[in-house]
Amino acid sequence: MEETTLGRQRVVIENIRPRADGGRFPVKRVAGDRVTVEADAFADGHDHIIVRLLHRKAGAAEWVETPMESIFNDRYRAAFTVEELGRYQYTVEAWVDRFHTWRYDLTKRAAAGQDLAIDFLIGVEMIEQAARRAQGHEARELTQTAAKLRSDVDQAQRLEVALDQQLLSLMDHHADRSLATAHRPPLEIVVDRPRARFSTWYELFPRSWGKTPGSHGRLRDLIDHLPALAEMGFDVLYLPPIHPIGTAYRKGKNNAVTAQPGDVGSPWGIGGEAGGHKAIHPELGTLDDFRTLCETARTHKMDVALDIAFQCSPNHPYVKEHPDWFRNRPDGTIQYAENPPKKYQDIYPFDFECRDWQALWHELRSVFQFWIDQGVRCFRVDNPHTKPFGFWEWTITALKEKNPELMFLSEAFTRPKIMYRLAKLGFTQSYTYFTWRNNKRELAEYFTELTQSDVREVFRPNLWPNTPDILHEYLQTGGRPAFIARLVLAATLGANYGMYGPAFELCENVPREPKSEEYLNSEKYEIRQWNLYQPDSLRPLIARLNQIRREHVALQSDWTLQFHTIGNEQLIAYSKRHDESGDFVLAVVNLNPHGAESGWLELDLAEIGISTNQAYRVVDLLNGQEFAWQGPRAFVSLDPAVMPAHLFYIPR
Amino acid sequence: MEETTLGRQRVVIENIRPRADGGRFPVKRVAGDRVTVEADAFADGHDHIIVRLLHRKAGAAEWVETPMESIFNDRYRAAFTVEELGRYQYTVEAWVDRFHTWRYDLTKRAAAGQDLAIDFLIGVEMIEQAARRAQGHEARELTQTAAKLRSDVDQAQRLEVALDQQLLSLMDHHADRSLATAHRPPLEIVVDRPRARFSTWYELFPRSWGKTPGSHGRLRDLIDHLPALAEMGFDVLYLPPIHPIGTAYRKGKNNAVTAQPGDVGSPWGIGGEAGGHKAIHPELGTLDDFRTLCETARTHKMDVALDIAFQCSPNHPYVKEHPDWFRNRPDGTIQYAENPPKKYQDIYPFDFECRDWQALWHELRSVFQFWIDQGVRCFRVDNPHTKPFGFWEWTITALKEKNPELMFLSEAFTRPKIMYRLAKLGFTQSYTYFTWRNNKRELAEYFTELTQSDVREVFRPNLWPNTPDILHEYLQTGGRPAFIARLVLAATLGANYGMYGPAFELCENVPREPKSEEYLNSEKYEIRQWNLYQPDSLRPLIARLNQIRREHVALQSDWTLQFHTIGNEQLIAYSKRHDESGDFVLAVVNLNPHGAESGWLELDLAEIGISTNQAYRVVDLLNGQEFAWQGPRAFVSLDPAVMPAHLFYIPR
Repeated sequence: MEETTLGRQRVVIENIRPRADGGRFPVKRVAGDRVTVEADAFADGHDHIIVRLLHRKAGAAEWVETPMESIFNDRYRAAFTVEELGRYQYTVEAWVDRFHTWRYDLTKRAAAGQDLAIDFLIGVEMIEQAARRAQGHEARELTQTAAKLRSDVDQAQRLEVALDQQLLSLMDHHADRSLATAHRPPLEIVVDRPRARFSTWYELFPRSWGKTPGSHGRLRDLIDHLPALAEMGFDVLYLPPIHPIGTAYRKGKNNAVTAQPGDVGSPWGIGGEAGGHKAIHPELGTLDDFRTLCETARTHKMDVALDIAFQCSPNHPYVKEHPDWFRNRPDGTIQYAENPPKKYQDIYPFDFECRDWQALWHELRSVFQFWIDQGVRCFRVDNPHTKPFGFWEWTITALKEKNPELMFLSEAFTRPKIMYRLAKLGFTQSYTYFTWRNNKRELAEYFTELTQSDVREVFRPNLWPNTPDILHEYLQTGGRPAFIARLVLAATLGANYGMYGPAFELCENVPREPKSEEYLNSEKYEIRQWNLYQPDSLRPLIARLNQIRREHVALQSDWTLQFHTIGNEQLIAYSKRHDESGDFVLAVVNLNPHGAESGWLELDLAEIGISTNQAYRVVDLLNGQEFAWQGPRAFVSLDPAVMPAHLFYIPR
Repeated sequence: MEETTLGRQRVVIENIRPRADGGRFPVKRVAGDRVTVEADAFADGHDHIIVRLLHRKAGAAEWVETPMESIFNDRYRAAFTVEELGRYQYTVEAWVDRFHTWRYDLTKRAAAGQDLAIDFLIGVEMIEQAARRAQGHEARELTQTAAKLRSDVDQAQRLEVALDQQLLSLMDHHADRSLATAHRPPLEIVVDRPRARFSTWYELFPRSWGKTPGSHGRLRDLIDHLPALAEMGFDVLYLPPIHPIGTAYRKGKNNAVTAQPGDVGSPWGIGGEAGGHKAIHPELGTLDDFRTLCETARTHKMDVALDIAFQCSPNHPYVKEHPDWFRNRPDGTIQYAENPPKKYQDIYPFDFECRDWQALWHELRSVFQFWIDQGVRCFRVDNPHTKPFGFWEWTITALKEKNPELMFLSEAFTRPKIMYRLAKLGFTQSYTYFTWRNNKRELAEYFTELTQSDVREVFRPNLWPNTPDILHEYLQTGGRPAFIARLVLAATLGANYGMYGPAFELCENVPREPKSEEYLNSEKYEIRQWNLYQPDSLRPLIARLNQIRREHVALQSDWTLQFHTIGNEQLIAYSKRHDESGDFVLAVVNLNPHGAESGWLELDLAEIGISTNQAYRVVDLLNGQEFAWQGPRAFVSLDPAVMPAHLFYIPR
């Protein structure tokens, strides 16, 4: 009752979409996206209400207004386009509009033949009030209209003045909004660059890419590989940590507890005499080399993504400089990482509960800033779920405020709610459970959740068929057909996907031991040599798939993903479409790498825009083969020894 | 970064249930209810977390804590009982618990045969810290335990000390909660009296209940009818407005535009020479009579519910005293109610947009207070959706703060979101679309929405087969069987139901004109005489049904409502159960009033707790007939000429 207008704000606004956790977090879009907003709005009584969508770039003084259209059941809708990177704000504002109510009632009274003299005078009063809110010629026009409406001409003429469209739009422009309701605080959108929605990642260990067999590869060597990677269609080159590697408790080949002389250690054992998170492992090269790598990548329209792993080897400079950032044990030693009874004595985790946490947060954020200053715009963050949630929100928000083009990939293979929380906090993309979803039901359920529920407002999946940590049993036992099937699934289920490169394209599939998902002779612990051009490499297929992804806008987003019925448990069928262009791509994948499978595929032709009795052309984008289909059912057969997948383009 | 602990609060709490509109509104319960609360909670990393449910009566200084159990997927659950009327608050608090984490790790280390010396010292430190937070003998006990754990006895003995249950509960009691996360502000519950959940309403026009035929009935006459109404099982006696009735533009019989001499007018045309909303129509009696009526009703455990209709006849004292509370027309007259081109010149609506709105709000609230002071604890509010939403929240909240036993029934026959909004704002019960839901699909869909969705947290349906404004076509054309079917549906689908009494029990079914839902010779405009004891009255059946409702706790709540498959579109089957007592009632109603219908009913026996090959006894509560059923299917046949419904009790 304190505010003098509060009780007179009669419109209620509810249930605005999109919204993440009731507005606690921004939703995500990319530049150029059309943002459709819906809200419930209603007032007491029978008066007409006007509902407007307001949006602005965060920080802009003025709101841009769009009228919201009533769709059904007190729900309203409007849309706007986000053009620039950064944060946008939006809200809904609505008010009871006496002029619209009066105008509507007037037509009904007139139709009933009632005398309108007093009603015209009520209109005059409203128009005169609007004239006082207007200025210049608009004010004059309103004043003149009011005079006409007051004049003594016949009712029909006055009615025409009252119902004039130009008057209506002037009245709308100068509506009395003193009692308007607005949803506060405004909701927010983080607008990323389009690569946040559509990207193709390649992970490699630079030390294995040297020119001389057996030597430690250098960043400079890598530069020469960039054109070939770009030609294969990759736009993010992701490097595991490039920092100096610790020597204390260094792991040997195949994760041996004790390293042998010459063992190179894991890049995730960060920090040594040559420095910590802001230094480059001397054997990889110099900061100059790294900057050159980034610049060259940029000329190929590629990002270099750095792996940021906030943990330290015992040799890390932080350990001496900031012993208070680690947990101390009663015997005076520093607490190493553990998963009792397992001990990881080569790794010291930070103690985020330490008293000096604010300095720690600032230092860690400055690590990102350091690499941003060298030209990095993309980070893959190692195990973000083992650092405080608040840290990520604070860090990513602040960094993106200065550099809205930044991208952060969350490597949190953990429980679903934690993965989603990290996405809400600001991570641009996220690893998923894709690697462990290998049958039809699992894939359909999981990707329906990711692409058709509210999760998609914040969580952008990035699909990896393998990583240096994960060689799934399906790949271990399925041979080349399994690799191809998983490749096609990743590249078409996910607008964002990536691979741990050489091992994947060369179909490396031997685990360290049975039941393990670790690679034998993993690059994590040793330098490997890859014959990138061996004849059975998947390189040409990968390049072709990535080209299809670039040519088919339907594959560049996840929101239209739809699964289709196909009468075989080993065959999975799904499509993506792009409504504006009509692009439509339909994938059928044989999940059984050991034998041919066939079945009847069922399509909703009306949805594709094809009439039931019309023959239509279907092109398999993978091999160029054409088919003529008719009707909603098609017979599909896939022999994995030939090719375990179709990727049909159906021109509309 | 301002707060020094904020960044160290590592637990996230999400998605607490129950909650209305994200916590904007309180949810509703009745005294004695068990409130089950769920929440997601998780922290970064792998440390153990402790999650507690906190609740208190609003205004109480101390929170009561209940440990929340982990159920699945980072979700936790606990419950508490609300005993008193009024507002309760609840929230969830959680923290990373180092002691629990340490204790769990210790068992794993011990099992692996590791040396625990340093781990014991870490424990000692935690226990000593807890001792400093504790007092008296608990502090001493903790200090002694720390000493034992530090001592030089063998590892097995120290392990026993470390894992002691008593130590664990002491440590829980003095846990370090300095970095705990709590959901703020707390969520709220409005706790009503049980009648809010289970009530049986009877509406009558006192002026028709006079002792002398044709005379204007008086409140005193009504007092003599109370025992019979109580015996019939009604616990709310609802009276249309009892205030002085205006004479200007008074409507005649059957809503004639012009009243004839002697026409009594509509009780909703409020206000005359004898006063307004705080006065009693002189022909009904005096304030003393009214207080006596309320007191007598109370002795029969009945509420008298007053109809509060905030609108004025042109003769209302407010019109002279506060002309600024109404909208003035340019010709100096006051704006009457309209639905253009229809005019209701006998009614002046308040102008809630007037400048003096605060005085208006206070005055209208004082109307409720006036009747509360006379002994009223239950109000039926006429058309609340034509008054500002904010007014209801402010009014009901303030009134219930003083009198938490108050009940408000919202008579808003309008769009669904508006009806739900009014419930969120504080209305205790709400009229529904029940009257217009007459076929099986409509009934099942609507009552599934009302009882199985989140709507039920705030919206308590009150089902009316008729009202003085609504004589549905189904009743007009279906004869006595239609009345019985709708009666059984209302009384069993709804724990709260009511009827506009004499017209219903006497099966009055003639509309004013074809296609109209208005009664011919409606009591709204004239005095009627009812032969309450005519032989074909539904009185005995109503009394029996209300008795069944009192005897079967399953029928006293709506949340367990479940529809069952029955192979006939004219038969509807549903059940309610009460888990604590095992009470289970199953209704089958024939919706076709014109002919017998039969079909196979399907039951989920496991849910009822009956094994498939066990015969079970079924009693029709309406006629006492017993059946022996076996298996999940039963054949049901209902002849409406005999009885259109079964109400089966299945003892478990």
